[in-house]
Amino acid sequence: MDTVKYSDIVAAQATLKGVTKKTWLLPSKSFSKMGGCNCYLKLENMQSTGSFKVRGAYNRIFNLTDNEKKRPVVAASAGNHAQGVAYSSKVLGLKSTIFMPAFTPPLKVIATRSYGANVVLTGDSFDDAYKVSQEYCKEHDATYIHPFNDPLIIAGQGTVGLEIFQQLSEVETVVVPIGGGGLISGVAIALKTLNPKIRIVGVEAAGAASMLASKEAGHMVSLPRVDTVADGIAVKTPGELTFNLINEYVDELITVSDEEIAHTAYLMLERAKILAEPSGVASVAAIMYEKANFKGRNVVPIVSGGNINMSLLEQIVKQGMMQEGLRTTIQITIPDQAGELNKLTALFSELKVSVQDIEHIRSISSVPIGRVMVIFTVNLQNQAQLKQITDELKLRGLGMKMLK
Amino acid sequence: MDTVKYSDIVAAQATLKGVTKKTWLLPSKSFSKMGGCNCYLKLENMQSTGSFKVRGAYNRIFNLTDNEKKRPVVAASAGNHAQGVAYSSKVLGLKSTIFMPAFTPPLKVIATRSYGANVVLTGDSFDDAYKVSQEYCKEHDATYIHPFNDPLIIAGQGTVGLEIFQQLSEVETVVVPIGGGGLISGVAIALKTLNPKIRIVGVEAAGAASMLASKEAGHMVSLPRVDTVADGIAVKTPGELTFNLINEYVDELITVSDEEIAHTAYLMLERAKILAEPSGVASVAAIMYEKANFKGRNVVPIVSGGNINMSLLEQIVKQGMMQEGLRTTIQITIPDQAGELNKLTALFSELKVSVQDIEHIRSISSVPIGRVMVIFTVNLQNQAQLKQITDELKLRGLGMKMLK
Repeated sequence: MDTVKYSDIVAAQATLKGVTKKTWLLPSKSFSKMGGCNCYLKLENMQSTGSFKVRGAYNRIFNLTDNEKKRPVVAASAGNHAQGVAYSSKVLGLKSTIFMPAFTPPLKVIATRSYGANVVLTGDSFDDAYKVSQEYCKEHDATYIHPFNDPLIIAGQGTVGLEIFQQLSEVETVVVPIGGGGLISGVAIALKTLNPKIRIVGVEAAGAASMLASKEAGHMVSLPRVDTVADGIAVKTPGELTFNLINEYVDELITVSDEEIAHTAYLMLERAKILAEPSGVASVAAIMYEKANFKGRNVVPIVSGGNINMSLLEQIVKQGMMQEGLRTTIQITIPDQAGELNKLTALFSELKVSVQDIEHIRSISSVPIGRVMVIFTVNLQNQAQLKQITDELKLRGLGMKMLK
Repeated sequence: MDTVKYSDIVAAQATLKGVTKKTWLLPSKSFSKMGGCNCYLKLENMQSTGSFKVRGAYNRIFNLTDNEKKRPVVAASAGNHAQGVAYSSKVLGLKSTIFMPAFTPPLKVIATRSYGANVVLTGDSFDDAYKVSQEYCKEHDATYIHPFNDPLIIAGQGTVGLEIFQQLSEVETVVVPIGGGGLISGVAIALKTLNPKIRIVGVEAAGAASMLASKEAGHMVSLPRVDTVADGIAVKTPGELTFNLINEYVDELITVSDEEIAHTAYLMLERAKILAEPSGVASVAAIMYEKANFKGRNVVPIVSGGNINMSLLEQIVKQGMMQEGLRTTIQITIPDQAGELNKLTALFSELKVSVQDIEHIRSISSVPIGRVMVIFTVNLQNQAQLKQITDELKLRGLGMKMLK
């Protein structure tokens, strides 16, 4: 088969029954309010393996020929596709070998191994790992499972679209993150067949917008490099099949910045109690930052994955608190005398501001002799407290600077 | 009505239709594996207002008499009950006044205000806020909505039990966090009526186990103080009604420590992509740490709430990474010479360990003259790297100590 038909997606749904989860379509009051629409989050971050990728991978591997099933299954991936292939192979009783770049986040390596895959860490980039995987396939007569440019993969991902329609037939707009384009291709075919009026909006990270560049050029374009926090959709070259399907079925392509993604990831945690990875919230960021016309519509952003490094999560939480005005960093210069520091901590205590960090600096030339610079990071009860603090410090004649 | 009947819970379910969410019962492979059972998470952390509390609050306020509805609705709460009452009042078009202790986390205050409640911040403890709320009620002839010791509240919370049975009729054990005992009372009545063989296990924080103390004493006991990270279930005195219902319907009461709660909250994020508050994961912690016999059973822990302070989340993530061996803090003493620090950073670079923080300390007496203490916090790819680092440092003759 050279393309993907609606019936392929229906068949994939039957294949996936009992293997993948019918993920919750969560109506979110918070995001509806913030986005000015009726927002329903499709929670593929809570899918088995932590992303939608398992749908395509399982559908692809299930449909291998008997002969192919006797040979090894191979994938190259730094992320969710690796876990999807490893997990699907395990369920089907097949051996998989996954090539991952040496710098793959530990959690993803551990998870992929936990599904019984043979993980080979190799090279400093995805391209390196891919190259080694191709050599391995030739040598071992193994079957390479492409992450997106494959009709059976696309049909598997399309089951997300079927589910959305089954859960909310009044859906008007579906917003889908785009990496290679497998998910949006399948989802668009499913939904446009069910109701051609449903708008399909694709979202890329601004630092990896290869599909938009290709669409604008009228032919497939390869980006020289990608630069985004959303590693799950950082793809240099779209697939040919997905490029054609997106041209045919997708209404609009837009981009979101890393800052928009990170702040949305924070709000997903704070308001909706959902942990999603940066690529997984690109769709929600598009709504939050009104990148297209979503007003008053029934909008479903697909939250495509949840596999985020815990140190990145830590950073997102920290920056989010700063942006929301719940934490701030203030540089204050005080006389270098006993009792002066205590005046500051007494002030914070009085204002019911809790201190997160203190740094005490003498050894930079901008600090005058006889004075000392103190950098306080404090947690605030609300934004009004910031003004209280600055007013009080001014009143006491202390030099102050917000570092944020 | 002096007690709660099954039919009251069925009636509450009808009352709540269209107001609260039928939350997902999520089968979790990770927690099933870790707990040695078939674990299904009941996601009340993703309920409207971020906790189950809205179910009881709405059922209670909906059933006010016409006369009561003309008077103000009042609650005292530092947490989820406040949001439940505020939200329910708003939906029903009533005015609510909520008394919260002055130190209530900002997010909970903001959320409660966002539902249109009049929030009064008063006193340094819940008891203070409660006292003021009672005076207000007398003065304004207002109706006080108790957080748990009320048949209509308990009937509302019991709808969680009905839902679980509707979602998984083969459920064998349900694990429920206990604060005042409203949730477990309602859930137990619902499930024991549907199938008396279903075991109901109640979980308290070890630092606030007033229900267990009361059960052991054979009468209601008030704790002099409570001390737990799980603020949502930090209750000094159980309700009389809930105490009696728990004695009648609940099979087992157990406790979990703050460390167990915090680590479980971390694993909920890392493995299941779920953000829950400490009291909300007490039930899951009980399974993780095998506090009762869950082996091989169909077990449903109720994840009762998700309203967690973002700075607490940050701390849970940090400590979790340390406990999982993904981050460590090492104290190293090196010669105080140009080039020595570089040898360390070169080593970390070689081992592909990323540096999170560095501290450089001279001014403590345990550092010998001519040497300097460096404290590195590093993110590791896996636990094996820790041994690599210590081996290399020993090989280089450097004094080293793990600070964790």
